[in-house]
Amino acid sequence: MKLVVVGGVAGGASAAARVRRLDAKAEIVMFERGEHVSFSNCALPYHLGNVVPRQESLVLMSPGAFKRSHDIEARIMSEVVKINRDRKTVTVSDLMSGETYEESYDKLVLAPGARPIMPKSIEGIDRDNVFSIRNVTDIARVKACIDRPEVENVVVVGGGFIGIETAENVVKAGKKVALIEGLDQIMAPFDYDMVQILHKELDDNGIDLHLSSTVTAIGDGSVTAVRTGADGEREEFKVPADCVIMSIGVAPETGLAKDAGLEIGETGGIRVNHNFQTSDPDIYAVGDAIEIFNMLTHKPGRLALAGPAQWEARAAADHMYGITNTYKGFIGSSCVRVFGQNAASTGLNEKTAAKAGYSFDSVMIFPNDKVGMMPDSHYMAFKLIFEVPTGKILGAQAIGRGEADKRIDVIAAMITMGATLEDLKTLELCYSPVFSTAKDVVNFGALVALNVLNDKFRQVHVSDVRGLVESGACIVDVREESEYAAGHIKGAHNIPLSQLRGRLDEIPRDVPVYVHCRSSQRSYYALCCLKGNGFDNIVNISGSFLGISLYEYFNDKTQGREPIVTQYNFN
Amino acid sequence: MKLVVVGGVAGGASAAARVRRLDAKAEIVMFERGEHVSFSNCALPYHLGNVVPRQESLVLMSPGAFKRSHDIEARIMSEVVKINRDRKTVTVSDLMSGETYEESYDKLVLAPGARPIMPKSIEGIDRDNVFSIRNVTDIARVKACIDRPEVENVVVVGGGFIGIETAENVVKAGKKVALIEGLDQIMAPFDYDMVQILHKELDDNGIDLHLSSTVTAIGDGSVTAVRTGADGEREEFKVPADCVIMSIGVAPETGLAKDAGLEIGETGGIRVNHNFQTSDPDIYAVGDAIEIFNMLTHKPGRLALAGPAQWEARAAADHMYGITNTYKGFIGSSCVRVFGQNAASTGLNEKTAAKAGYSFDSVMIFPNDKVGMMPDSHYMAFKLIFEVPTGKILGAQAIGRGEADKRIDVIAAMITMGATLEDLKTLELCYSPVFSTAKDVVNFGALVALNVLNDKFRQVHVSDVRGLVESGACIVDVREESEYAAGHIKGAHNIPLSQLRGRLDEIPRDVPVYVHCRSSQRSYYALCCLKGNGFDNIVNISGSFLGISLYEYFNDKTQGREPIVTQYNFN
Repeated sequence: MKLVVVGGVAGGASAAARVRRLDAKAEIVMFERGEHVSFSNCALPYHLGNVVPRQESLVLMSPGAFKRSHDIEARIMSEVVKINRDRKTVTVSDLMSGETYEESYDKLVLAPGARPIMPKSIEGIDRDNVFSIRNVTDIARVKACIDRPEVENVVVVGGGFIGIETAENVVKAGKKVALIEGLDQIMAPFDYDMVQILHKELDDNGIDLHLSSTVTAIGDGSVTAVRTGADGEREEFKVPADCVIMSIGVAPETGLAKDAGLEIGETGGIRVNHNFQTSDPDIYAVGDAIEIFNMLTHKPGRLALAGPAQWEARAAADHMYGITNTYKGFIGSSCVRVFGQNAASTGLNEKTAAKAGYSFDSVMIFPNDKVGMMPDSHYMAFKLIFEVPTGKILGAQAIGRGEADKRIDVIAAMITMGATLEDLKTLELCYSPVFSTAKDVVNFGALVALNVLNDKFRQVHVSDVRGLVESGACIVDVREESEYAAGHIKGAHNIPLSQLRGRLDEIPRDVPVYVHCRSSQRSYYALCCLKGNGFDNIVNISGSFLGISLYEYFNDKTQGREPIVTQYNFN
Repeated sequence: MKLVVVGGVAGGASAAARVRRLDAKAEIVMFERGEHVSFSNCALPYHLGNVVPRQESLVLMSPGAFKRSHDIEARIMSEVVKINRDRKTVTVSDLMSGETYEESYDKLVLAPGARPIMPKSIEGIDRDNVFSIRNVTDIARVKACIDRPEVENVVVVGGGFIGIETAENVVKAGKKVALIEGLDQIMAPFDYDMVQILHKELDDNGIDLHLSSTVTAIGDGSVTAVRTGADGEREEFKVPADCVIMSIGVAPETGLAKDAGLEIGETGGIRVNHNFQTSDPDIYAVGDAIEIFNMLTHKPGRLALAGPAQWEARAAADHMYGITNTYKGFIGSSCVRVFGQNAASTGLNEKTAAKAGYSFDSVMIFPNDKVGMMPDSHYMAFKLIFEVPTGKILGAQAIGRGEADKRIDVIAAMITMGATLEDLKTLELCYSPVFSTAKDVVNFGALVALNVLNDKFRQVHVSDVRGLVESGACIVDVREESEYAAGHIKGAHNIPLSQLRGRLDEIPRDVPVYVHCRSSQRSYYALCCLKGNGFDNIVNISGSFLGISLYEYFNDKTQGREPIVTQYNFN
């Protein structure tokens, strides 16, 4: 058995190592175009901010160590330029010597990854202060650039995971950062309402964030971009830029596969079967270059994540040795730290659920992440997407100063196991006041969602509130008077929950009444009280004052819009 | 509808509040024997260490606020002394006035909780420097005592959750603490091998820990206890004590229920049905006083946890209003912070799995909690218990400086949904190097467990290693030479994995060979390599050098035992 692997990072190195564990005698050769194998892609941006100070730390294993510890031949600076399926060889170009040779295989694993998109349409994209981040060599170049004292202004183009992590780390390195994103929000896994918290966090930390803006040219000391307004109006602007980092997305490396006549899927990734075999059964493909099956949409998709790459690699290796795989499909769980906010998501969001044709609803809540009296307790924004009418959990997003990743990992487990809101409602998680609350964030999410699912109350979302205010709707704020005084929705009527029963005559019966408090806990009590007293047109404002404030703040500030609250209050 | 509730904390307050949400018109009266309703029991110990500096913070809601916000009548210092089922009333003793009166009910909820056990057999248990912790008044008394400058030595009796949290907080208050525990380990939810990490942590933080020791007398300035050795030998000793805090356990408050002729379960808790009704359908019981059904043992059990109490209360209230409950049974998830270690567990441990008659096995691993190059990355001890031969997940324990609670919450979700190791193996959790590793701790647990389940290798547990060393077994340490030099198992033969293929002739074929590294990752590679080279008597030491060191350290130090390692090394 001779295994050849194309690509020496997450998927490739995992496939090679797994085959070695299964077969002590196999000959294993791994080709890597770059200078390093087995480095941590995901940690690259952290080198810029000196979270990982030493470049060498980014590399987990050298070719020498691969040979010594695993008897795997890792050849760096070696690009596989062709697959010769007829004679089961690959043609390899030695990038140091320029020579080309053929290497035979019994089984071939393609793990070529995906390359950063660098649009030729952007004038100046080839300048030597324009970078992308794919490997250790790239990040060393970027670091060398931003570490120069004369480099003051750095522009990051693209607000996905790499863009956000890069922007933060460049700020940590002491530079001024502008982030330019083509869509009206960063971080596609999050819905527009949730992501406003991250927009605010970037803004609070001095990042100059330009949304709905496309870079058109990179010039001497500046970048030119065009912003498209809500009305479709286009406005050109310039941002100072001594260094530009492109992170607008990646494209799967499918050239080799295409040239070899392997089937490419409808999403542009290499098509694979249940066992990660391509259309040639002796050639497997794993990682960012392939098309995966989504467990929730039941459709093909793409996924550029290290965890799935590793287990696809394992599954491919196992299949070579007759070990059966279970492939239930992927749900796409991810997380990111954005300065002081931890943000995580799993499964579908509103956009992807709609696109998949689901009938669904969602709730957004702001419960405490720990018992309120604990010194590091804070609210956590939590959004839960569920199918209607089944209550099947489809996805979740969590953002907060506390453990958002924990909540999302729990939801990922529940989704994977096909759980419904009823399962989540009573899920028994571990509790101590220093870690959580007796009913955890995720339990609260299920309880609120079940109320919506069971028509216990109607709700409007934070995105609807501006319209309500502008149309003069009746909004009742049931917080205490001191809270109201510290900031409230313009025109809202304040009747504290503690006074509500004595002031029922102040609530109109002829129009819808929109109720909120700080985090929707008291407004829920108010709603039950009002319903029980015969009011039948009461609507809960999902997310309440916290949600509204976080939703409106960034756009108000950057668009010079008239706030719908008298004063912002994020406590 | 008139609801009467006995007990005004987790279960009681939740039942009252839920009925109010369901019924705006119900009359609700809640009786509490103590001075406060709706306080956080679980947070009480944190007042001692000034984590929660203000006593008032411990109380979530006053009777006045209950009345104003929820129209619930909360009567403190009011003990329900009798249930008169024939006329559906309770007899209440007003502890302030000494007067007694009857209050009628349509539905009654018993949430009396459990009381700290204070054995009369301990001489001096009634001294005024001996305390237990149940409510805010108790903790205020303890705090007043330990805050006196002349109080230097505090003895905590009992190493359960409350004992451990109390001990830590008293240390934080600047006092010397001795902890005396009757069993050979603290924290029953953890197995003996895992809990050694916590023993070491207490010891490292200056707590004088006495295991297998029973307090017999509390005297003037000291406590007398008896230690039972492994050989059954009993040794009396004294520990200085200016203040003694008893936390050896709690007994369910079943007096009222018993006197009223309500059925008591075999475990000593009040027996309830699917809807938390007692044997009298108009009387519900919830919380620490009841007997619950365990999802995994399929047997009745008891559970003194706030989360379950809250949802039992909700379920009881719902049933009064015709809302259907799902009661799948409890699994018992819990967590605790012990100085710098976070410890969490869920489901069954080895002891409870054995008692329940399960055929099971377990693995113990020490993977990184985050990507190794990240500054706050640390190993996490993780133990997974699974059924043999099904691979059904039965329980888990995690202890580490990182997010042990997260890993256990994920396992709790998987257990609840009936997951097997195969489900856990590929579970797609969210990953970023600052939060976790691409394969998370729990995925590794499943992979190792599947190897054991599928007889890919044999293993011995850390508890077996002393015997191996003493019997002169062949132990091979595959770490690098520098690691071996910094501490190794006595008599172990060092063949680094990176040299193994060239030194196969040093491995005997006629005796079992026990292989280990630091955390079992390299030893697994070594094992695959040796198996592939025809060695068929290779055994993995589960937990490897880290596990062995953590397992042995505390007992070696406190029992003056000869270490089986040349030097401890916990890095």
